[in-house]
Amino acid sequence: MVNDSEAPANGYVQPSIDVKALAALLDGAYGEIRDLVRANLTQHAEVLEDAERLGLDAFRDRVRDVVVEMAATGQTGMGFPQAYGGGGDVGASIAAFETLAFGDLSVLVKTGVQFGLFGGAILHLGTERHHEAYLPRLITGELMGCFAMTETGHGSDVQALRTQARYDPDSAEFVITTDGEAARKDYIGNAARHAELAVVFAQLEVGGRQEGVHAFVVPIRIDGAPAPGVRIEDDGRKMGLNGVDNGRIWFDQVRVPREALLNRFADVTADGTYRSEIENPGRRFFTMLGTLVQGRVSVAGAAVNASKVALTIAVKYASRRRQFTAAADGEEQLLLDYGTHQRRLLPLLARTYALHFAQDVVRTQLHEVFSRPQADDLARRELESRAAGLKALGTWHATRTIQECREACGGAGYLAINRFAALKADSDVFTTFEGDNHVLLQLVTKGLLTHHASEFENLDQRGMVRYVTALALDTIIEKASVHKLLERVRDLLPGGDQWDQEAGLLDSEYQLAMLRFREEHMLAGLARRLKRGMDQGGQPGAVFSQVQDHVIAVASAHVERLVLEAFVERMRQLPDGDEKVALGLLCDLFALSTIENDRAWFMEHGRLTAQRSKAIHREVNDLCRKVRAIAVDLVDAWTIPAPMLRSPDLLG
Amino acid sequence: MVNDSEAPANGYVQPSIDVKALAALLDGAYGEIRDLVRANLTQHAEVLEDAERLGLDAFRDRVRDVVVEMAATGQTGMGFPQAYGGGGDVGASIAAFETLAFGDLSVLVKTGVQFGLFGGAILHLGTERHHEAYLPRLITGELMGCFAMTETGHGSDVQALRTQARYDPDSAEFVITTDGEAARKDYIGNAARHAELAVVFAQLEVGGRQEGVHAFVVPIRIDGAPAPGVRIEDDGRKMGLNGVDNGRIWFDQVRVPREALLNRFADVTADGTYRSEIENPGRRFFTMLGTLVQGRVSVAGAAVNASKVALTIAVKYASRRRQFTAAADGEEQLLLDYGTHQRRLLPLLARTYALHFAQDVVRTQLHEVFSRPQADDLARRELESRAAGLKALGTWHATRTIQECREACGGAGYLAINRFAALKADSDVFTTFEGDNHVLLQLVTKGLLTHHASEFENLDQRGMVRYVTALALDTIIEKASVHKLLERVRDLLPGGDQWDQEAGLLDSEYQLAMLRFREEHMLAGLARRLKRGMDQGGQPGAVFSQVQDHVIAVASAHVERLVLEAFVERMRQLPDGDEKVALGLLCDLFALSTIENDRAWFMEHGRLTAQRSKAIHREVNDLCRKVRAIAVDLVDAWTIPAPMLRSPDLLG
Repeated sequence: MVNDSEAPANGYVQPSIDVKALAALLDGAYGEIRDLVRANLTQHAEVLEDAERLGLDAFRDRVRDVVVEMAATGQTGMGFPQAYGGGGDVGASIAAFETLAFGDLSVLVKTGVQFGLFGGAILHLGTERHHEAYLPRLITGELMGCFAMTETGHGSDVQALRTQARYDPDSAEFVITTDGEAARKDYIGNAARHAELAVVFAQLEVGGRQEGVHAFVVPIRIDGAPAPGVRIEDDGRKMGLNGVDNGRIWFDQVRVPREALLNRFADVTADGTYRSEIENPGRRFFTMLGTLVQGRVSVAGAAVNASKVALTIAVKYASRRRQFTAAADGEEQLLLDYGTHQRRLLPLLARTYALHFAQDVVRTQLHEVFSRPQADDLARRELESRAAGLKALGTWHATRTIQECREACGGAGYLAINRFAALKADSDVFTTFEGDNHVLLQLVTKGLLTHHASEFENLDQRGMVRYVTALALDTIIEKASVHKLLERVRDLLPGGDQWDQEAGLLDSEYQLAMLRFREEHMLAGLARRLKRGMDQGGQPGAVFSQVQDHVIAVASAHVERLVLEAFVERMRQLPDGDEKVALGLLCDLFALSTIENDRAWFMEHGRLTAQRSKAIHREVNDLCRKVRAIAVDLVDAWTIPAPMLRSPDLLG
Repeated sequence: MVNDSEAPANGYVQPSIDVKALAALLDGAYGEIRDLVRANLTQHAEVLEDAERLGLDAFRDRVRDVVVEMAATGQTGMGFPQAYGGGGDVGASIAAFETLAFGDLSVLVKTGVQFGLFGGAILHLGTERHHEAYLPRLITGELMGCFAMTETGHGSDVQALRTQARYDPDSAEFVITTDGEAARKDYIGNAARHAELAVVFAQLEVGGRQEGVHAFVVPIRIDGAPAPGVRIEDDGRKMGLNGVDNGRIWFDQVRVPREALLNRFADVTADGTYRSEIENPGRRFFTMLGTLVQGRVSVAGAAVNASKVALTIAVKYASRRRQFTAAADGEEQLLLDYGTHQRRLLPLLARTYALHFAQDVVRTQLHEVFSRPQADDLARRELESRAAGLKALGTWHATRTIQECREACGGAGYLAINRFAALKADSDVFTTFEGDNHVLLQLVTKGLLTHHASEFENLDQRGMVRYVTALALDTIIEKASVHKLLERVRDLLPGGDQWDQEAGLLDSEYQLAMLRFREEHMLAGLARRLKRGMDQGGQPGAVFSQVQDHVIAVASAHVERLVLEAFVERMRQLPDGDEKVALGLLCDLFALSTIENDRAWFMEHGRLTAQRSKAIHREVNDLCRKVRAIAVDLVDAWTIPAPMLRSPDLLG
């Protein structure tokens, strides 16, 4: 869409976007599966209205039916081996899940629970006997299951959960018991109504010895009634996602055979001997949990796509809605021509594009790690860190974007038919489930600290320390390491003391250097604070707690740097042309609005003068005006099926 | 609650709060009516569960019943004259409404629609004939009405609405007609099901002349069916507030008698002559609208109290929930002892207290203006500006606070029984109704600009220009005025160039000077930009649109300054004692976290060094630790009836 009348005077020419070409670029290698999901969403579009129309249990059953019907098209089984009826393509399974987030999010989360959490646990923690017994029927949705990890008393701190699984050698059975009210399983999707099986995480006791958290397959429902010794309670109505039947489960001496242990990483012999190839219990625990990284990658991508739905509605509405008179001729002005309206929506649009490309990177990493026969510890750790970080930033982005878009559509945005009600209520818990965002960002920072430590101090033999929740800080933040970190910060500057004064604001090397400088400087500062705290005799956990805000800030800075790198890298691969120019505007807008948001920090740390800070503000305004001219094309390129947007009055 | 073990070493002694005394201080002069509302809320507590349990229409009827039952206690009629069965105390009516926000917000909004909007329009825009005909029955809730102002095509720009009311002198009737689909009335509370009457805002035409927007009493429903010529459509399900029956209304040549015009400010004689004591049409329009300022004051107070509900749950939960091990003894740490958790909740707690005291000021102003027999233009304008600004900042604060508190309660916060689901969904539209926040803040800034202009340039005779939406900028921003504004900024500094370097961070004069400097500097900068735009030949509306982000920033800065002044002023009136010490902590925390949030601006404008900015960050952390020790007492002092909090698992 070229609009000559708005072309600035400095020779800049507004790009003209080929929407189909941009859409193909965005869909990438997974256009086929994404189009299948789009078709399935359109076919089942009426589920969006059912969410308002049906009662609680009727809607839950409706969502179950939709999930099973979608499963029959092959959409939800892409991540399972072909031998069991799956598609054998992990990347495609993530792409399918991301695309599903254009539609009703109960369908999305029910799909995630059944095929990602329950199916994923059977696949990755189980062995052939479990695969043969369960995979073929769970891939079709005939066998429904749930993933019983979270407990009321311990949401984020899985290692501390208190459900017990004692091995009884006489009967060769495990005895599963809920140890106290805080140990009840809670918020378990599929538990209140549909699941026959549960993968239950419990503290394994063998021969009087505690062996840590392990997973067991436990029947919880037989012919619709709770299995003997199992008590199930409905979590009831929730803010959203009411098509998912969350519930609580208690186990009272429930006996399952020895083979119910998902035994890929550890097993118990018939006579009651515990065996594992992974000696360190902490490492074993995190290796098990690590196989579940798919869930975080999936939620990150889903959050980005839920943001796209909100932005599509708000941008298209603002491009046709007129309000108040601004021009001399008395005609009312389009909302999207107001500077504040651009400021409200377009940096969010740019960040959504940035997160989209960052998601491409993490999905590709996931695909590679899980398609390899042998585990590569370093690649896994990098994947886990990136997944945790993107999940946190992506889901906060969704919460913020959906809220801003609702407000930008005024009172109309409040009506259920206009989609924001469900989007907002359903996506709200994304910031909490699959790992609370604050906890995830702390994991990211702990990883960075240990990564540096091992890089500089050759601590490989103790590298797994990063997996220990109560971080062994004394090991990590030795003086030498802090010293090296500070050196690294100096080395980062691309040359000369004035690098940040002279570079052009639209130079992506400048933008990257700013985000790299921030990350490294924050990390070094954090290491220094930790060391000081330890030197003064503080307990590691207490010291870490005291600097928690720095910990969160480091992780955010790290992830934003990764996101910008992903965007810049993608840009560099593109052939010259209008799409590249358009994406370049978005990349600049993302980078500069990110720096602008944290400009106080850059000024505090001598990397931004007051004058240059104001120049960035003006540049962001200018970029908003340029992006405004192509904003409708940019949201159209996401190719969200029209029935998913609803909003008849807003979209005309 | 004194906790000696946490007392810092510098001699500071943690205050010990007398919760009852603090509660009485907060309730102020309206303890009696607030306690009545608390009792009524407790009596009807089950409506909170009905919101989840009942279908749409059943819940709407239930809410109507609760409102009528509350009306019978005198709670909702405080703002009406005693002669008609009211309480004759405007301030008490606002206090009652604020307190009602502790409970189900559909009950609150239905109350606001019936007694505030509908009843308020009859009272303030009508004359004795309307009062006698309607007030006694509407005060009891026997006669239900709605307030039909907003149209689909024009939400915020009321002057542009397009419903027509033509006077027919032959029959001495007005003929009301919806002129095109964009002119349908929309989102009208009480319209879809319960209202018999509507106060309809329409463009009055008398003898072929357009006389601007006026209000008419129009029967829309007779014995449950739409009146002849009236079409009503249900707005259907909304994100929240589903106990309020919002709807759309179309009028097709609906005839009402001449006496249906609410004729306090203008009238039409039987022979078809238009008469008004207010000659200027713009001034007439805004005088009519001005009587509706109560709605904004009410919503501002309700938003603050809805925030209190969320904070009470989150703070009390965090004071008993343990998560992760930090101490050496292996005991898990309380959430509220984590630095980030304090950072997430306690500045919001301080801001809630600050907004509470600012609400006291605006409620008092409202009471005084509306209790006086004669209008005082200046006092009215100040009230309207303050009400608009507090409504915007208060409702955004509620949206943000409720979201943060939900996330701080993790997955449990997502369950409907734990209150956040309803709080979040119901309060979401507060930022939009009774004036969209962005539009309101623009009004605030326009008022500031004209205030300065008239103050310096003796433009009193043209003072009402501020009421014109397309602001007459050329009048306002004459060179002299800009010059004077800049002088004022210099005069503001409390002495010496180093004032902001040497003052103590906890000196409230320093804090106030910082917020005053920011406001005046921003305002002067805006005036300069406007002048430059006009000098370059821009159209006033277009120039104003281009600097819209500055316009919003000025208004926010202005309102934050008013809020801090209200808090500091209240502090100064208090006798010495522990409550004063406690409120002093909150006042400092509010002031410094406000400066911290905008520290980039202060650095850009030379009023904060990097070093001092970091010192403020540390001071905020320190204040959070001090407030943490008394946080539970501080939320208890709000005296929210326990059944309003629900959350059995969170609160134990």
